[in-house]
Amino acid sequence: MKIYLAGPDVFLPDAVEIGKRKVAICAAHGVSGLYPLDNAIDVSAGEVSLDIFKGNQAMMDAADAIIANLTPFRGPGADAGTAYELGYMAARGKLCLGYSNDPTIYAERVRRFTEVSSQDGHLVDAEKLTVEDFGLSDNLMLMHALDLHGCRLVTPRQAPADIWHDLTAFEACVRLAAERVASR
Amino acid sequence: MKIYLAGPDVFLPDAVEIGKRKVAICAAHGVSGLYPLDNAIDVSAGEVSLDIFKGNQAMMDAADAIIANLTPFRGPGADAGTAYELGYMAARGKLCLGYSNDPTIYAERVRRFTEVSSQDGHLVDAEKLTVEDFGLSDNLMLMHALDLHGCRLVTPRQAPADIWHDLTAFEACVRLAAERVASR
Repeated sequence: MKIYLAGPDVFLPDAVEIGKRKVAICAAHGVSGLYPLDNAIDVSAGEVSLDIFKGNQAMMDAADAIIANLTPFRGPGADAGTAYELGYMAARGKLCLGYSNDPTIYAERVRRFTEVSSQDGHLVDAEKLTVEDFGLSDNLMLMHALDLHGCRLVTPRQAPADIWHDLTAFEACVRLAAERVASR
Repeated sequence: MKIYLAGPDVFLPDAVEIGKRKVAICAAHGVSGLYPLDNAIDVSAGEVSLDIFKGNQAMMDAADAIIANLTPFRGPGADAGTAYELGYMAARGKLCLGYSNDPTIYAERVRRFTEVSSQDGHLVDAEKLTVEDFGLSDNLMLMHALDLHGCRLVTPRQAPADIWHDLTAFEACVRLAAERVASR
């Protein structure tokens, strides 16, 4: 089984190293991890970002599954690029797995960034935009995509000390994928 | 042509009204707008969020195209739920159109939320996470999905006074969709 390893990990200072660790964990469980190409592109080429896009899309097309790192990125919710990739894989009928190293629910997390108040029976932020309040970890499209196209979001009971480098929840997803292979 | 109208518009205080305006604009151009069900669910039902997910997915499956409102939502980038839906539609081979009422590029926008500095030749935020700096409006997966699966992101030259209610860029997308129908 080939698994596309999506997530904002590619934006970490040690993006290449974390990719190697993820691929090694996959190998230890008998599956193959495909880590996005962001760091393997010829930067002298003219259309770097387009090359990355095409590389990632080809990797997704080659993969049987996705493990999406949905740990909140630069705001209260998941990285939009990762969310795009989860949608892409769900639509292609691939196995969708995901984890977040932040175990809080979305509505609670929004409070870290903006004032949240109750209005007409639902939560709104400082801009008066509704705050999703279904007790889910993130936007319902992402959460239920996992429920219906794979497995429920994996989260730790408590956030690890280093949310970007702790791969315990990631490895739990790899184990779920490996079990699917074994049960075939 | 049926067009799925994705975006954080569903979180606006006047979410139903803006949906009606969008559907009316579609009709004026001879296409059919499908606005997400978020506001038409029986709230007495047990699994509200799952019902919304299934309703949205069924609407996407029924649609020939998507117009995604990628105006930055609760942070420097697009709403993750909308990004998911764009990925879903791209993977299904549907026509992908999108707009943002914020014409600035992503790297500039991140500066509104966090300190951005240059390190080893690339931009990083306060957490030392890389800031995409390709001169694009948002994450490259979203931007190039539009380029390759539809049309380039539509943005105004200047942000309108009301970024959530100005539908000029939205209407430009509807026009692009209608032209596709006419050219068939």
